[in-house]
Amino acid sequence: MSTESAAPAVFITPEALLEHWQGHRRLTRRVIELFPDHELFTFSVGGMRPFGAIALEMLSMAMPMVRGVATGEWDTSFDRDPIPKDEILRRWDESTDQMNAAWAQIPPERFHEQMTAFGQYPGVAHDLLLYVIDNEIHHRGQGYVYLRALGIEPPPFWER
Amino acid sequence: MSTESAAPAVFITPEALLEHWQGHRRLTRRVIELFPDHELFTFSVGGMRPFGAIALEMLSMAMPMVRGVATGEWDTSFDRDPIPKDEILRRWDESTDQMNAAWAQIPPERFHEQMTAFGQYPGVAHDLLLYVIDNEIHHRGQGYVYLRALGIEPPPFWER
Repeated sequence: MSTESAAPAVFITPEALLEHWQGHRRLTRRVIELFPDHELFTFSVGGMRPFGAIALEMLSMAMPMVRGVATGEWDTSFDRDPIPKDEILRRWDESTDQMNAAWAQIPPERFHEQMTAFGQYPGVAHDLLLYVIDNEIHHRGQGYVYLRALGIEPPPFWER
Repeated sequence: MSTESAAPAVFITPEALLEHWQGHRRLTRRVIELFPDHELFTFSVGGMRPFGAIALEMLSMAMPMVRGVATGEWDTSFDRDPIPKDEILRRWDESTDQMNAAWAQIPPERFHEQMTAFGQYPGVAHDLLLYVIDNEIHHRGQGYVYLRALGIEPPPFWER
């Protein structure tokens, strides 16, 4: 109706996508919180990684990907050493604020540009960002099984 | 650069989002295929649903959501009876073709309209569609743990 015929069709705007992602991150934060401290870096099923290692991986991907798309600077440092749950949550919240600030600096056309994330993953920016979100959802699903196997009720998937 | 200042910013176009989704659906299809027939509706971890029940749920959400957004007709029938793996895969492929056809009929402005999916889930169309995709990724992550617990190597998450 009000759509310029020359403008590309919009499935979702950058603003709405960030809100969607932060909703997922709020849910993942609750999953981290629900793990008993002593199980976070020890408990697993089927020989897979414990959820604490996964949470650290998520931290190493989310803000670093947004920063890379925003600035072209790719942070490939990745601290894998176990840290207390409180410290993971503190870094999670810090990332949330940093992501919101950096996202606002991304020019809209950037989301459609080809780039090489972290010096080794080529792709269009929107696909690289969706990959990080999808990876979080995927591994959080793994975390749900761990929680159930520990006898802990995970939060409803639809609560963000 | 070529962006009309009046046009909304685009994170991703409908066409690219469908391609992204179908990539996820190809991966989920491989996960279904990897389950031994006799484990598909019996094996689980932590008292959660077996993966066959989850695959049927995915089928009841994907094409029905796309059809609903495209036509306003919401199919709430949901067959939960276990069926052979081959039949699940046949329905999966059938849905893939139906989704591609129905998606092409969705006017771009529709993705930003408020609606009530299946007569009970209110939301903006893009959020309702992302919910279905996210739900698939989430439960497929659960399927990865089941496969590992069965001693079966799941496909790499990044292969679509």
